Amino acid sequence: MAEGIAKQSEDYSRWYTDVVLKAELADYSPVKGSMVIRPYGYGLWENMRDKLDQRFKETGHVNAYFPMLIPESFMHKEAEHVEGFSPELAVVTHGGGKKLEEPLVLRPTSETIIWDMYRKWIQSHRDLPILINQWANVIRWEMRTRLFLRTTEFLWQEGHTAHATAEEAEEETRRMLDVYVDFAETEMAVPVIKGIKTEREKFAGAVRTYCIESLMGDKKALQAGTSHDLGQNFAKAFDVTYQSETGQREFVWATSWGVSTRLVGALVMAHGDDDGIIMPPRLAPIQTVIVPIYKKDDERTATVAEAHRVGKILKDAGIRAHVDDRDNFKPGWKYAEWELKGVPLRLEIGPKDLEKKSVFSARRDIREKMGFPVDGIVDAVNDRLETIQKALFDKAVQFRADNTHRVEDWNQFKDVLENKGGFLYAHWDGSTETEEAIQEETKATIRAIPLDDDFEDGVCVFSGKPSKRRVLFAKAY
Amino acid sequence: MAEGIAKQSEDYSRWYTDVVLKAELADYSPVKGSMVIRPYGYGLWENMRDKLDQRFKETGHVNAYFPMLIPESFMHKEAEHVEGFSPELAVVTHGGGKKLEEPLVLRPTSETIIWDMYRKWIQSHRDLPILINQWANVIRWEMRTRLFLRTTEFLWQEGHTAHATAEEAEEETRRMLDVYVDFAETEMAVPVIKGIKTEREKFAGAVRTYCIESLMGDKKALQAGTSHDLGQNFAKAFDVTYQSETGQREFVWATSWGVSTRLVGALVMAHGDDDGIIMPPRLAPIQTVIVPIYKKDDERTATVAEAHRVGKILKDAGIRAHVDDRDNFKPGWKYAEWELKGVPLRLEIGPKDLEKKSVFSARRDIREKMGFPVDGIVDAVNDRLETIQKALFDKAVQFRADNTHRVEDWNQFKDVLENKGGFLYAHWDGSTETEEAIQEETKATIRAIPLDDDFEDGVCVFSGKPSKRRVLFAKAY
Repeated sequence: MAEGIAKQSEDYSRWYTDVVLKAELADYSPVKGSMVIRPYGYGLWENMRDKLDQRFKETGHVNAYFPMLIPESFMHKEAEHVEGFSPELAVVTHGGGKKLEEPLVLRPTSETIIWDMYRKWIQSHRDLPILINQWANVIRWEMRTRLFLRTTEFLWQEGHTAHATAEEAEEETRRMLDVYVDFAETEMAVPVIKGIKTEREKFAGAVRTYCIESLMGDKKALQAGTSHDLGQNFAKAFDVTYQSETGQREFVWATSWGVSTRLVGALVMAHGDDDGIIMPPRLAPIQTVIVPIYKKDDERTATVAEAHRVGKILKDAGIRAHVDDRDNFKPGWKYAEWELKGVPLRLEIGPKDLEKKSVFSARRDIREKMGFPVDGIVDAVNDRLETIQKALFDKAVQFRADNTHRVEDWNQFKDVLENKGGFLYAHWDGSTETEEAIQEETKATIRAIPLDDDFEDGVCVFSGKPSKRRVLFAKAY
Repeated sequence: MAEGIAKQSEDYSRWYTDVVLKAELADYSPVKGSMVIRPYGYGLWENMRDKLDQRFKETGHVNAYFPMLIPESFMHKEAEHVEGFSPELAVVTHGGGKKLEEPLVLRPTSETIIWDMYRKWIQSHRDLPILINQWANVIRWEMRTRLFLRTTEFLWQEGHTAHATAEEAEEETRRMLDVYVDFAETEMAVPVIKGIKTEREKFAGAVRTYCIESLMGDKKALQAGTSHDLGQNFAKAFDVTYQSETGQREFVWATSWGVSTRLVGALVMAHGDDDGIIMPPRLAPIQTVIVPIYKKDDERTATVAEAHRVGKILKDAGIRAHVDDRDNFKPGWKYAEWELKGVPLRLEIGPKDLEKKSVFSARRDIREKMGFPVDGIVDAVNDRLETIQKALFDKAVQFRADNTHRVEDWNQFKDVLENKGGFLYAHWDGSTETEEAIQEETKATIRAIPLDDDFEDGVCVFSGKPSKRRVLFAKAY
């Protein structure tokens, strides 16, 4: 257990906060509910952003930037949207020393300002589709905040697309959901369940919200991304029509989809242990740290030089390597710090390694140690990093399997939820009333109606009414 | 002259706005003073950002993210800072449906919130230097706004560094100024003058502000970037001290430096002509556009296929190529559109080119046309792009030389400024009083006290008092 960090088994919530602060991913800001993303945390977010951005561009999207300030009246144009977001708005009432004629809100999401612009940009079917993404900060006034998981300001991307047909919009919604699945599983090494949100949980203004749900180390669920089919709701609210090939004026079809810095929290909680974070190599800001080991001055000179020589070989090969040549810390202290920060692979170079032209390595995830020759080190390190990436994903899949339960009745539902936690697959009668009653009694919510073929006749665990399929329940972040 | 675009010689200001809107770099937003950066403009900004970010990282900086919301009281802690920025603040008074206890301002710049955090992070000389940069949006309530050049919200980067000594801070300030010079000249192909701002023009809270000044096509100056030595002003305002190696508590030394989306406007005005933008190849979102030329259907099939084949060869080689295979526009219409958008090199492929296995090319800048074989096209295109990049820079250097004047007395000053414009090198007595009087009478400001060796005894053009060197005057954006 790392110094000053709670054990997961004793206080998971404090473990999370301790790790985020001590690993210097983030810090509290003087404004309640806001946070500072420190360089190590931002480095992780930059890697996430680059991997997502590449996928967005490969699927034909371009980036743009829309204003942060939105006329308050815009929020009222779509009935469900205003209901969902009004309680979370921050309002600018003064600018340049004067009271504004109309208050401006800070974007909690950008559908309204973007669809106001789309009205100007879309005339004909030839202007469609529009496939725009935006990287931006958003503000949602939250009562209970937690670093990365729920903050008043957060960073995210929000895709906003416009289409000529309902089919195209639905296809886009599903395509981007699959992009998120691929990102979460390939880059974050976090397996996810794809599903549809219930009417109660869907995005305010959407026809249908798809989501990916992941399981954290404390067996609670976390929504990692959402993709919304907005139908013609925003086109109608903002009067956005196009002339079809046959000359008709038609309302445009819309989607929006987003993931946020919340994913940093998901990554910490999906892989971390009592010693700190475990970064998946593909996203780790530092993939391997090289620590020279020495006692005497001449040993220091030689091992530090070799550490930098090896570091350069690795960096030249595109590996994110860091040499920790600080003289004021002992190796054991350095090991603990890099374990806390979750660097996937540690390399040690001592006087004996110099003689043997070898390095000693230690995996962060399973602590496996082995030596290998400096000759061929690029392949050896890349190989180890790939192994770690796969091992993290496999372990998370196994953890989820071990913590997924099919429950048949209400007593079993409560018993499993209380004593085991995790994902519960149970029959539900499809009513919002039942959904609310279950949450009230157990704090569990319907995370998703999964996109799989798991149909079977059954009865709702709560109401006993007939049901055609199981849905995914869990306590969630 | 492109359709719907004013001629530069008739109305430069309208030309600029026409070009920015018609080339789809940006659009007006419904909130006065705010703008939307459209995908083509954002693509340019992304390229600028990447080239700058690479230089920041090469000089040892890391990125982080600080909150957009700042307690209003923070702005008051540094006396000059509050005086400079108070008139431009946007204020959030309500959040989550309630009036806030203390109003929050939207960051106009982040010194205050960052130095409040640095107080927590800096204890010892071992914590220094801190070399952090942030990419963010900022809000400054502006009365007169122009697309990219002055908008209520803009995107920028702001570096904020902390050092143990005055010398280190000054060295950092100058280093980052040189990074901006290198970026402007190498990537934007815009030559700049390095200098120091006068007391009147310096950043609110700085000890010394360095700047780079460029000359636009209408012979007005534009400040393209600033780098501030903040001395200990913010350390004292936020009580940020460190323990030195000898155990003393010392105030920390600071710098900050930034460039913004204003550079997009600078690029447009530095290189554009009556037909539109001319993008420097190193930053162009599209470096070369390929237009198939055909009349009959079979010609269409063949030339479009060849255009895509050539496009793929270029893209695989890392060239940002785009194939314009739209069937509903004639080639001439396409040429005009891509000229407006400033694509540096156009390639045309017609039936005859297919026979000869060649392509026809046209440079955007000097309209030079030539054919070359498809075999070896990657080298040919790269070579042409490098030639264009250099030609744009050389042309801008020549334009600046042609529009730089040494003026000796007040009548000549007014005459040159009125009838020729451009950069005026003139003697100045060093007083704010004279500086203000000159601006009042002529609208010219001191752009910079240049960082060159141009010392000579003379007398101030306005007051006749003695002067040791000339300074740079111009009308400016």
